[in-house]
Amino acid sequence: MRILGIDPGLRVTGFGVLDKQGNRLEYVASGVIRTPHDADLPQRLKTIFDGVSAIVREHQPTQAVIEKVFVNVNPQSTLLLGQARGASLCALVNCDLPVFEYTALQLKQAVVGYGRASKAQVQEMVTRLLRLSGTPSTDAADALGVAICHAHGGSTLSTLGGLAPQLAQKGLRVRRGRLIG
Amino acid sequence: MRILGIDPGLRVTGFGVLDKQGNRLEYVASGVIRTPHDADLPQRLKTIFDGVSAIVREHQPTQAVIEKVFVNVNPQSTLLLGQARGASLCALVNCDLPVFEYTALQLKQAVVGYGRASKAQVQEMVTRLLRLSGTPSTDAADALGVAICHAHGGSTLSTLGGLAPQLAQKGLRVRRGRLIG
Repeated sequence: MRILGIDPGLRVTGFGVLDKQGNRLEYVASGVIRTPHDADLPQRLKTIFDGVSAIVREHQPTQAVIEKVFVNVNPQSTLLLGQARGASLCALVNCDLPVFEYTALQLKQAVVGYGRASKAQVQEMVTRLLRLSGTPSTDAADALGVAICHAHGGSTLSTLGGLAPQLAQKGLRVRRGRLIG
Repeated sequence: MRILGIDPGLRVTGFGVLDKQGNRLEYVASGVIRTPHDADLPQRLKTIFDGVSAIVREHQPTQAVIEKVFVNVNPQSTLLLGQARGASLCALVNCDLPVFEYTALQLKQAVVGYGRASKAQVQEMVTRLLRLSGTPSTDAADALGVAICHAHGGSTLSTLGGLAPQLAQKGLRVRRGRLIG
């Protein structure tokens, strides 16, 4: 099973691809799609649509996962983010990929074991879980994180079937479902 | 010049196609794309994307126009509407169409001459201006209206170069840029 994770955004859309072989996760690729901030909205959406389509063509995932986005304090920003997410989603369904959705809370609980984890904590845990030599950007890490969340069936560290046993094997300490130390 | 107008929405997306030959507008087609309300969001966006793409393939417009949407009182609705609009926009730019945007205010001013016109007034004026034998639905009328707005360069009844002279010829009365009677 090859999973493509997407962290949608108008300025930056993060993506991450990983393979799930049994219980083992293998990193394949990650990065970001940036849109020119001086372009008009239709052209920015085209950049996102074309970018996600190109990633699907190159890496041939079998499933796609996209982060559910928060409603912003600024309604105009919510509208722009919605349109950007719509562009990513269209590229995925246009490639006939099944699409799954998780909230940032579910992502953080699955990857860090704590729903209010910082972006840096997500970056660190993604780097460890996928045995990466470098740290991905926050957007790419979120995209890899949502793919990891899906690979584990959306389960969390606080459930027994989650990542906790794996993390314990890696020498990390987990208490009451939360990562410590 | 063949113009495709889109009134974006998650449940119903209106479309309208017209030809501009000199100052004359000729109706080509209009209708709506409905999404199944029990389908998940990715599938609903796919219905919109595929529907708009099919309309472009069938009618081969040279320009596209899409209504700018209002920020809803409910932020979650704003997010959904944004994603639906993103799906329509993606289909248009994916067909390499230049896309223009107008607000509902601009549409109503161009078509009715009054920014706070009702949906029924827009339907009536679209029917008259395009010499239709029947009245299009509100969503299709909005889509035809935004196409008419673009055909007239976004000009309004309250500017001398707008629709006022045409309307006067049709026996409609215009006072201070507003349609009366």
